[in-house]
Amino acid sequence: MNLDFATIFGLFGSFFVITIAVIIGGSMTAFYNLPSVLIVLAGTFLVTTMSFSATEVFRSQRLIARTLFTSGKKPDGIAHQMLELAEECRGKGVLQLQNYIQSLDDDDFQHKALQLVVDGLPAEEVNRILQDDLDGMITRHSSSAGILHRAAEVAPAMGLIGTLVGLVQMLSNLNDPSTIGPAMAVALLTTFYGAVLANMFFSPLASKLERNSAEEILTSRIYIAGATSIGRQENPRRLEMILNTLLPPAERVHFYN
Amino acid sequence: MNLDFATIFGLFGSFFVITIAVIIGGSMTAFYNLPSVLIVLAGTFLVTTMSFSATEVFRSQRLIARTLFTSGKKPDGIAHQMLELAEECRGKGVLQLQNYIQSLDDDDFQHKALQLVVDGLPAEEVNRILQDDLDGMITRHSSSAGILHRAAEVAPAMGLIGTLVGLVQMLSNLNDPSTIGPAMAVALLTTFYGAVLANMFFSPLASKLERNSAEEILTSRIYIAGATSIGRQENPRRLEMILNTLLPPAERVHFYN
Amino acid sequence: MNLDFATIFGLFGSFFVITIAVIIGGSMTAFYNLPSVLIVLAGTFLVTTMSFSATEVFRSQRLIARTLFTSGKKPDGIAHQMLELAEECRGKGVLQLQNYIQSLDDDDFQHKALQLVVDGLPAEEVNRILQDDLDGMITRHSSSAGILHRAAEVAPAMGLIGTLVGLVQMLSNLNDPSTIGPAMAVALLTTFYGAVLANMFFSPLASKLERNSAEEILTSRIYIAGATSIGRQENPRRLEMILNTLLPPAERVHFYN
Amino acid sequence: MNLDFATIFGLFGSFFVITIAVIIGGSMTAFYNLPSVLIVLAGTFLVTTMSFSATEVFRSQRLIARTLFTSGKKPDGIAHQMLELAEECRGKGVLQLQNYIQSLDDDDFQHKALQLVVDGLPAEEVNRILQDDLDGMITRHSSSAGILHRAAEVAPAMGLIGTLVGLVQMLSNLNDPSTIGPAMAVALLTTFYGAVLANMFFSPLASKLERNSAEEILTSRIYIAGATSIGRQENPRRLEMILNTLLPPAERVHFYN
Amino acid sequence: MNLDFATIFGLFGSFFVITIAVIIGGSMTAFYNLPSVLIVLAGTFLVTTMSFSATEVFRSQRLIARTLFTSGKKPDGIAHQMLELAEECRGKGVLQLQNYIQSLDDDDFQHKALQLVVDGLPAEEVNRILQDDLDGMITRHSSSAGILHRAAEVAPAMGLIGTLVGLVQMLSNLNDPSTIGPAMAVALLTTFYGAVLANMFFSPLASKLERNSAEEILTSRIYIAGATSIGRQENPRRLEMILNTLLPPAERVHFYN
Repeated sequence: MNLDFATIFGLFGSFFVITIAVIIGGSMTAFYNLPSVLIVLAGTFLVTTMSFSATEVFRSQRLIARTLFTSGKKPDGIAHQMLELAEECRGKGVLQLQNYIQSLDDDDFQHKALQLVVDGLPAEEVNRILQDDLDGMITRHSSSAGILHRAAEVAPAMGLIGTLVGLVQMLSNLNDPSTIGPAMAVALLTTFYGAVLANMFFSPLASKLERNSAEEILTSRIYIAGATSIGRQENPRRLEMILNTLLPPAERVHFYN
Repeated sequence: MNLDFATIFGLFGSFFVITIAVIIGGSMTAFYNLPSVLIVLAGTFLVTTMSFSATEVFRSQRLIARTLFTSGKKPDGIAHQMLELAEECRGKGVLQLQNYIQSLDDDDFQHKALQLVVDGLPAEEVNRILQDDLDGMITRHSSSAGILHRAAEVAPAMGLIGTLVGLVQMLSNLNDPSTIGPAMAVALLTTFYGAVLANMFFSPLASKLERNSAEEILTSRIYIAGATSIGRQENPRRLEMILNTLLPPAERVHFYN
Repeated sequence: MNLDFATIFGLFGSFFVITIAVIIGGSMTAFYNLPSVLIVLAGTFLVTTMSFSATEVFRSQRLIARTLFTSGKKPDGIAHQMLELAEECRGKGVLQLQNYIQSLDDDDFQHKALQLVVDGLPAEEVNRILQDDLDGMITRHSSSAGILHRAAEVAPAMGLIGTLVGLVQMLSNLNDPSTIGPAMAVALLTTFYGAVLANMFFSPLASKLERNSAEEILTSRIYIAGATSIGRQENPRRLEMILNTLLPPAERVHFYN
Repeated sequence: MNLDFATIFGLFGSFFVITIAVIIGGSMTAFYNLPSVLIVLAGTFLVTTMSFSATEVFRSQRLIARTLFTSGKKPDGIAHQMLELAEECRGKGVLQLQNYIQSLDDDDFQHKALQLVVDGLPAEEVNRILQDDLDGMITRHSSSAGILHRAAEVAPAMGLIGTLVGLVQMLSNLNDPSTIGPAMAVALLTTFYGAVLANMFFSPLASKLERNSAEEILTSRIYIAGATSIGRQENPRRLEMILNTLLPPAERVHFYN
Repeated sequence: MNLDFATIFGLFGSFFVITIAVIIGGSMTAFYNLPSVLIVLAGTFLVTTMSFSATEVFRSQRLIARTLFTSGKKPDGIAHQMLELAEECRGKGVLQLQNYIQSLDDDDFQHKALQLVVDGLPAEEVNRILQDDLDGMITRHSSSAGILHRAAEVAPAMGLIGTLVGLVQMLSNLNDPSTIGPAMAVALLTTFYGAVLANMFFSPLASKLERNSAEEILTSRIYIAGATSIGRQENPRRLEMILNTLLPPAERVHFYN
């Protein structure tokens, strides 16, 4: 698990840019209004909670935290490793894998894939079980990103509701013209908060989760292809060919050439 | 059936937040206007009724009520239970299930699944019937959520129509400038009501229904897998493996390990 | 064919609500402007005609008329009827159906389904022909609803174009400030007409068509299941089981229990 | 190839309606501004060109021209014709078709379908080749409509950009209040042009192309069913039944009854 | 690799049109504001980076550069070439291809397709490997276009956020009425930048990438059909027929007629 500098750099960088723009144009105090913050933050949290369950909303905090890290595993590195294992098993049999498996994290997809091979299940069965596992993972990931996507929809809606509250209050009380400007500035703040929250926080993090999911799906596919091939005791050269159809051209492995 | 605190907490919490924002900024009377309430509430009800049938719209009230409750059944608990039943049937035969079935609610998916096994239908047939049942359930659930999604589209549209009515009335009668502000405030109220109704009521409840449907689909899948496996008289260890591909990693069952 | 009170009640009710709102706020004359009516009504009609063919647009009037009626056939009633026919054919053979068929409307799906069985076609063939028929019906229904969906998109667009025409005219001629308000009111009228036409007429009727189509698809599925089962001379108890996977839980038939 | 009166009537009719609305409200000169025309027309052309290739954009002009015509072939007429050919081939063999084929246009789908039958290819092969041809046609048609859909997205965007240019110019130069109205009128013109271009030209023509494509797909399906049936030397009564599942109820052929 | 004049002409042409519109209406200085440029450019870059990874965002620059070029290979030319190769192999055997392959670029899809045939793999295997390769290419291309589509969503959002910052600053400080106009002009600039960036840069380039991808998929399909046919040692006349179902009517090859 390494820090994902793209997330951190993008998150802090974009908030820094907006802060600079606020400071250049005047004081920051005009951009802070506690009731507006409450409407947007609490409203978004509460409406998102209503859409899902409390457990899922709290789990989404862990999801957000996970976007700050990358697995650090590169698809080509993983493909290379699977080829090495395949080569080794070819000489010495699949039981060789047992030692390697013990060094792996227990909840790992790789651990499960190789364990099934060592357990002597037929290759088709190994393939089917892992494929089902992968399908389940894809469903779970897309429902996780769904919570952040939903929050990205709710935040601007709460911003609009807050601005409408402010506008109605201002318009029904127009006695003193000098208060119109500041009152409208405050009314616009919730729209501003909603736009920032949705576009600079929830939406990009949901995209990031989807992107990380796509990467994890690719590595899982490599593990599935590797385990199935080892289980079938195929020629590793054939595995290399299959893995290279999964990998992007620039990251293809050249183990035998 | 337990209360779903996420729905109740989110619903009351978000209305509470908006109420606080309204009170802080002035009097609540500026936010109440009977004709505006009528346009949005009655309009949304009538247009949604036109889109469906009276039966379906009244049934949607029961649907809304159902979002206030959770089934209280946890997928891992259900999986554990199916494994216990599978283990028991292995020793003493499927007729054992009859006693267990009698304790279940009659309309229950679990009841139907196990009854088919006890009736001695071939496992493939059991699987196909339950799968068709599940497909029907998925269609019905998505059409139920569809009514709330439709209402969430209609409410802001009625709000816009109400605001246009108010604006046209105000603009065609500009004699007294001091009435412009309050008239426009009233015109904006329907947009406000529509936004609140759509974003803080219909949309999150539609999402909740979809989420509850996803959960019910998962539990039904567990029942299908269990009934099919018991019908096939397979080794329950295999059932455990299949159930664990359905369950999220954190909720997997470890019955044999 | 019975009147569909949901359509009639929703249509007249929602127009009644808007009319009341208009009258409460002042005179109705401010809401009537012939050129604005022309831009939106004629424009929507002409652009929708351009998108399809004259035949289809005129046929859409018949479609709109059809949303005012319901078939009056209930899925559970139809399922019950198919079970009775299946029971009868079991005792006396499929030729029994001939008398029953003659009482049916000639263009009817039920007529065609049973005629194929009487004609002695193999059950698989009956099933395939009816399935193809149903697929064709689904395509036609969705293209019919498509015309109303398109009109619901065109109406607000014509409203926007009309409002832009009014705004440009008003702004390029600002000499007399007292005319600004009324001129802008007139400009907003096309947006109002477009919003009403789309949200209170075309969109709900398109939804209604889709809903009615879903109902007709369900009854067709029941006829297909029935005809196939009778053709196969299966036990009607099996047919009951199949029909109950198609029907929602509350409408399931209990013919044998 | 007959003129498609729906396209011509809709196109000229809707522009006529807008022109009348413009003339009633004042002079037409307020609605003409050369730079605004350039921004929207040239901008839409250039950005659409950038999205595709020059060839495709020029080909789209031919596509637009094609929406002015209909093929003039009615699906039921074509179905009748295929039944006559099938009847004839049944008596005198497929070589009979050769004379008929020579009267057809060379690039025609019908020509190709029948030629494959005359060439003596197996019916399954004929079916597969024609189906591949149809799939290719569907892809090409949808990519053609895609250019017009894209232009319908670009036009309002260029209108918005033009209005923003006008607003910024007006606002940064507010010395003479009497110029504000006309300047804003000019700024709104690009939005007006963009809305007209998208909603009264590109969007309906894209819909028309899709509708015409659906019609051509239906006639192609009739040719495929006919050629396959003739190739199989099936009973033409069976062909009639298959063709009637493709045709809408009102247009079904009754060749044998 | 030839220059893609459509991209270059569209890109420079549309920016030229906007520049002319800006100059006609006044000075260009009103349209330049460094903080606004920073908010939109830096904000879009940072938020897009957050959504993906740094590697992918930098790779997208290469993608943008690639839209300036076309492969220069025409589908009909490629189809003709495959037919020539098939004709040659028919006479002299597939080993003939070896010389031809050596003249090709190493990373080329054509190189790989023909090499597999020369290596003597069974035709079905060749077909499957190339098809997997093509599927991988389609996934990669759509994820590449996804980065530009995302940037096209982010740019107007950053423009809106910038405008809200400007409006709040202006409204909370309304002392001097003469500054309102220019302050609002500056506030609108970020919306203008965002609209230009999204609609005249990111969106059309994303469409271009998708269009180029569709072209590359077509040429790959031609290579797959050719290699499979050569591997099967089929009659090249049959290959011609298959290739002509892939090619649009106007570009079909007539090698044997």
